[in-house]
This record gives sequence, C-alpha cells and structure tokens, in this order.
Amino acid sequence: MKALVLHHLNEFPSLDENYANPVPEKDELLVKLTYAALNRRDYWITQGQYPNIKLPVIMGSDGCGYIGDRRVLLYPAIGWGSNKRHQADSFQPLGMPKNGTLAEYIAVQPSYVYDAPDYLTDAEAACIGMAGLTAFRALFSRAELRGEDRVLINGVGGGVALMACQLALAAGCEVHVTSGSDEKIDLALKLGAIAGYNYKKENWHKSVIKEGIHFDVIVDSAGGPGFSNLIKIAAPGGRIVTYGGTHGALQNLNTQIIFWRQLSILGSTMGSPTEFKELLHFISKYQIRPIIDRLYHWDTTDQAFEALRDSHQFGKIVFSLQ
Amino acid sequence: MKALVLHHLNEFPSLDENYANPVPEKDELLVKLTYAALNRRDYWITQGQYPNIKLPVIMGSDGCGYIGDRRVLLYPAIGWGSNKRHQADSFQPLGMPKNGTLAEYIAVQPSYVYDAPDYLTDAEAACIGMAGLTAFRALFSRAELRGEDRVLINGVGGGVALMACQLALAAGCEVHVTSGSDEKIDLALKLGAIAGYNYKKENWHKSVIKEGIHFDVIVDSAGGPGFSNLIKIAAPGGRIVTYGGTHGALQNLNTQIIFWRQLSILGSTMGSPTEFKELLHFISKYQIRPIIDRLYHWDTTDQAFEALRDSHQFGKIVFSLQ
Repeated sequence: MKALVLHHLNEFPSLDENYANPVPEKDELLVKLTYAALNRRDYWITQGQYPNIKLPVIMGSDGCGYIGDRRVLLYPAIGWGSNKRHQADSFQPLGMPKNGTLAEYIAVQPSYVYDAPDYLTDAEAACIGMAGLTAFRALFSRAELRGEDRVLINGVGGGVALMACQLALAAGCEVHVTSGSDEKIDLALKLGAIAGYNYKKENWHKSVIKEGIHFDVIVDSAGGPGFSNLIKIAAPGGRIVTYGGTHGALQNLNTQIIFWRQLSILGSTMGSPTEFKELLHFISKYQIRPIIDRLYHWDTTDQAFEALRDSHQFGKIVFSLQ
Repeated sequence: MKALVLHHLNEFPSLDENYANPVPEKDELLVKLTYAALNRRDYWITQGQYPNIKLPVIMGSDGCGYIGDRRVLLYPAIGWGSNKRHQADSFQPLGMPKNGTLAEYIAVQPSYVYDAPDYLTDAEAACIGMAGLTAFRALFSRAELRGEDRVLINGVGGGVALMACQLALAAGCEVHVTSGSDEKIDLALKLGAIAGYNYKKENWHKSVIKEGIHFDVIVDSAGGPGFSNLIKIAAPGGRIVTYGGTHGALQNLNTQIIFWRQLSILGSTMGSPTEFKELLHFISKYQIRPIIDRLYHWDTTDQAFEALRDSHQFGKIVFSLQ
C-alpha cells in the first residue's frame, strides 16, 4: 500500500509506495482509508519536539475510511483509560508510536471506530478526530461551557481553535477571536464570531478592557508571556483552558486577580471515548462542518507539511489517500 | 464600648475605650462579642496593601459572642451573592469598610449569625470564620477534595493553611505539609500529617519527585517563583488552589505539564453562606478544634499585630474582648 513514513527527524515524511499492508490482529478491523488530516502534533514529531519518538512510523492521527460499506472515522486517543480527570499512563495518540492514518489501510480495535456523520464528506469527516476531541473536552468538560458564556478563542487559525470557535457558536455563545492575521479574523467573523482582535497590536487586551469586555471562557494554545493578558480579561469565575504552549512557559500571572476573581486555569489534552461520542452527537445535532484549508495528495505531501509548519492555514490540512 | 480602631495606615490599630456602641438598624441584631481572631488580611490593611481602604475602622472579620443566651459566631463575607462561581461585586469581608469584630459589640444582619458549635470554647469558635470558610471553599468546592486524594498544604503555619490541613485530615486524606520552620512541620506531623518538607532547602521538591510522590490537591497562598515547583509535583488530574500571593506573581509555569497532566490552577477566596453552613456541619461532624497560637488582651494588642506581621504563629492569633 501507499503510506507516508517518517524515517528521520528534521525531515518531512516520505511516500513509500510498497509499504506492507497491515495485518489485523485477532479483534482488529481493517479500514480502507480515503482521507486523513494533519495536526500540529505531526509537525512537532518531525522536529523531535515530542517525548518518546520511535521511527520509522506512518504518521497521522485522523482519518475517514470504509470497512466494507460502512463509512467510519477513527477515535485518535489509544489507551485513554476510564478516569474522568486524566488519561491513563498507557495513553498514546494514534500515529506514533502506533502507525497512523497517512496510508491506504490501517488496522484498529473495533472500539476506536465510529460511524461517520451522514451529512459530512469523507474529507470533512477526516478532520474531526483530534481537533474536535481536544476542543470538545477543553470547552465542555474542562471549562463547563454554557450558552450564556462569552468566549474568547485565542489564535483562531489552527484546527483545534477553529473547531472550538464552531462548537462555542453552536452552543449559543458570544464568541470573540484573536489572530495575528486580519484575514483570519475576517473569516472567523463570517463564521459567526462577534469581534476579533489582532494580537500583533501591542496592548490589544487593553482596548478590550477599555470596552468593559470580560470573558467567561478563554481557549489558548500559545502560552508564553501573552498568557498574563488573558488573566486580565477573564471575567469573575472565568475559565482559561490551555491545550498547548507554542510560546513557552507562562510568566507573570497576577495571583491577586486569579484568587479574587476565582479564575480557573485548566490544562487539557484530547479526550475520552465518552467525550468523543458526545462530540459526534453534538456536531451532528448542529450539523457542524469542519473547515478544510486545502486538500493535498500523495504527490504534494511536502507542501502539506510546509503549510503545517508555516501555520498560515485557516482550518484543516487534509490528504486525499485515493 | 472598647474597640480596636485603625486610624492611620502603617500603624497598628489603637484601643478606644469610649467608642460609641453600635445602634442596630431595623433588622440587625446586637451581638456582645467575647473573642475575635485576626487574619492575614488585617495586616495587609494596616499596610495599605488592600483595595479601597476607608479609615477609621474597627478591624476584625471573625468573632464569637452572645445574643442574650444564644452563643453565636459570625459569617464574615458580606454581600457574597448567589453565584456559585464567584462573589458579587457588592462583596466585602467584615471588618473594613464595615466595622468589624475587634470590639465589645457589633450589629449585624440575622443571616450573618450562626450558632457556635457546642463542643468549642468561645475562643475556638471565634477562629472559624474567615480561615475555615476560605479553606473549605478552596478544598471542597474548588479542588473537589475526596478522601482518596493525596494533599500538600504549602506553608502550614497560617490560619487558612492549618485549617485546610485539619479539614483534609478529617476527610481521610493523606496530608503532606511544607513550612520554612521545622518546628511547624513537627506540629503538623503531630496533628496527623504524614510528611513535611522545609521549603528553605533548595530543590526540596526534587526529593519529593525522587520518592515518586505526586499530589492530587495542593493548597498554596505564597505564589511567586516557587509556584512552578508545585506544578511539577502535581499528579495527573491534580488541582492546585491558590488563595494568596505573598511572594508575588506566578512565574515560569510549564504549559506542557499543565495540559498533559490535565492540571487545574484554581483561584479561591472566602466562600458563600452555603459553604459556611457546610463548613460548620463538617467541623462539628469531625469535632475539629481550631488551633490557637496565643491569646491576647486589650493591653497586648500591639504584640498581637506584631505576631501577625512576623508570621511565626502556628494557628490563630486570638483576642479576648472581655
């Protein structure tokens, strides 16, 4: 089969046209994949910025495909466990160390296979997995989002942030966004966000404060020095969820604001099978369509990883595996 | 009546032997106070380190006293409101701007008056208010403490920390403590804590990590640079509650640990009337006795405030008002 295999760090994965087809172990199902989607994690792995990297590996955590006539998508968190608060030690996202979705076939346990929502294309269904799961747990399980909350999505271009934006809008929330790109802000406004702020403008948060705006829920994956501004624009009882740290450690967080406003800073990563089921139910209920930035093919895989590296996308970077 | 009145910042309050007795407004009750307890907040007010200070004022948030034969203690959070997540804008602790408990009489609304638990002395009952309420909300409402949790109380000498230690022990938790004083650690061990660490030893947290110990719940009021070590010794799904920031802003918090371990950093201050009721029920059920560091009288008020300033106490600094 064709597969996209990472052989060495600091390179992009390369096409192997004659990779051995996976042989399902006793209970496993063989899925013929049609589309896969990339995640920021895939880029970190190519850069060696991930713990316990084992090579070579077929990359990819998200995919849509077929088991006979049954159209399925994959739950991407292997060995999550049963504790509501956190994943088990055995947890590993699909696509390293276990071979992932950037191939024509994958063998998985039946419990990792879900029916793809009818109204989505294969390519759209392939986008849901990791981004949807991460956004869903962050918003609903961790931040306990409700329709009356005012929400800020910090850095709206990426897969999780954009899905969080769509989920919060569907939940009935007033959604604000930030981005370093005015174009991405415009796209988010078209989706239904009510306001956007370009974080490249120094002290952008002060204009928010001046307008008397505070946020009940803030979603962030940047971390770094800018996180201290998020504390300042959080409402009393506010929840700030962090699922990444692109800009490094959190600095200079004002404790007095944190305790006096009863703020919660909540770490979150991916989610449980139960949360995945709830996510699929939620997006079907509101007929949410994941946003695809661009579609790539077997002959444009380098361009796909360059796009992932450069973070200019608005929505998911998707592979056709056909 | 006798009252301890703060007239100027950067001074301690002084005894006024002829302060006018409070005149209860329509619904208010007149309480003849017998004991009052100090809180760290009282020191911050004398230093001007508190917002919206109005002088002169009778200080003190906690007290025990009598309405006729009825022995009562006071709920110290005025105007808390009805939102579970946070206090209302109208909230103000008792004892600034409204006159507090360091006097022979106080007039309060009936809803702020609770029966003192039978098994406690007046002096013990006077200790419960602010420290107990803060510890209870921090542990049970914010950190959702359960008996199976391993708990770290960071800086065990102060009123809230010591009450948190006692509440967590009563809940059946394995409790560890830190202090800058080996003597305080020994006293906490006598109370039932299982281990103690002197945070003046550099890298004390590394020995904890080396022993494979992680904490489900950590209670902290120091903040500052040391807080980043608390992140490192938190267990997956761990909750770190902060109710103070004696050592300043939080620095250098590792985002990867926060999101991968699904940690929660939870700001907390005081608590609601419902939480106060639950606290009184809890301490009565487990017959918890607040710990008194030393008792002061009208002629030793300066010494009491010096003790508060120097933070050498183990337990509450209490005033006899008789």
